[in-house]
Amino acid sequence: MNKSALLLVDVQQGFDDPSWGQRNNPDAEQKMAQLLQAWRALNLPVIHVQHLSTNPESPLNPDNGTGYAFKPETAPLADEIIFTKNVNSAFIGTNLESYLREQEIESLVIVGLTTDHCISTTARMAGNLGFTVQLVADGTATFDREDVNGVKISADAIHQIHLASLHGEFCTVVTTDDVLSRMVYQR
Amino acid sequence: MNKSALLLVDVQQGFDDPSWGQRNNPDAEQKMAQLLQAWRALNLPVIHVQHLSTNPESPLNPDNGTGYAFKPETAPLADEIIFTKNVNSAFIGTNLESYLREQEIESLVIVGLTTDHCISTTARMAGNLGFTVQLVADGTATFDREDVNGVKISADAIHQIHLASLHGEFCTVVTTDDVLSRMVYQR
Repeated sequence: MNKSALLLVDVQQGFDDPSWGQRNNPDAEQKMAQLLQAWRALNLPVIHVQHLSTNPESPLNPDNGTGYAFKPETAPLADEIIFTKNVNSAFIGTNLESYLREQEIESLVIVGLTTDHCISTTARMAGNLGFTVQLVADGTATFDREDVNGVKISADAIHQIHLASLHGEFCTVVTTDDVLSRMVYQR
Repeated sequence: MNKSALLLVDVQQGFDDPSWGQRNNPDAEQKMAQLLQAWRALNLPVIHVQHLSTNPESPLNPDNGTGYAFKPETAPLADEIIFTKNVNSAFIGTNLESYLREQEIESLVIVGLTTDHCISTTARMAGNLGFTVQLVADGTATFDREDVNGVKISADAIHQIHLASLHGEFCTVVTTDDVLSRMVYQR
């Protein structure tokens, strides 16, 4: 696990805004915090990604209050690197890829919000760029959405189907316990 | 529509291999062919993307017979550009982005295979790179997959949920008829 970075994507207060709708995995932040604590305890690389939306209506737009701020459970320490972005992929408009190459980090453990938007896009690009990716199923979450005909789809259905499409093609889908148990073993 | 290119992604014979499982949208190739005919008739830009898999077991690996070949319904003409790739995104490991910038093509109409793998990844990157993207719902298709617990999910459920996640965030989901009717109007 020495070269695995924990990549925390968009774990920001604005996702608590009710406008997003009903969410699944309410414990996801607690799982992310457990992983972060483990990474810090072993001095493994931690990378935070922060979405600064340019959409005037987004709770993640820095002009709209404090929603752009990190959630306290996983807020960066002073010596942890932060990449800011304004699209879904953490690799577009940032130096994340060159940073990973420079640091010789070849594998990523990805957590954050939301499963089918920024997490999926970042995991897809990471895998296609040649990184080994573990995506933590219970360390991600999404919201109910309407399909293109206006029919409501549950957050959990969206979450499960996106994980199915990602698993084995772009990444390996794991759980927090999977990751933590292997870290203890390798320690 | 003058600056809209038709991007045909991985419309290759290897996707007829039974190993992929049950597919949805059996008429997708016919819809793609209708769009291609319209683009050619109006001399609009057409771009083909071909997946040359490096996976020894893939029907899209050029060492495994003729599965890498284009399907006849939408095969490129001699003067149509082809980008070859070996990951899901048509933008990774190719010059597609620089080609689009050089040609001043700012918007893409995307069709091809499969909805949740190469189409989703390419549409996500296109949107995040700043292109205006229309994704043709009935000009794409996918296959049944198992979820991470081994439970079968239907191709149609996967297709619909992926379109829901993409629509309004990375692209506009449209139908072949939507696109064709606007072309006739603008002609």
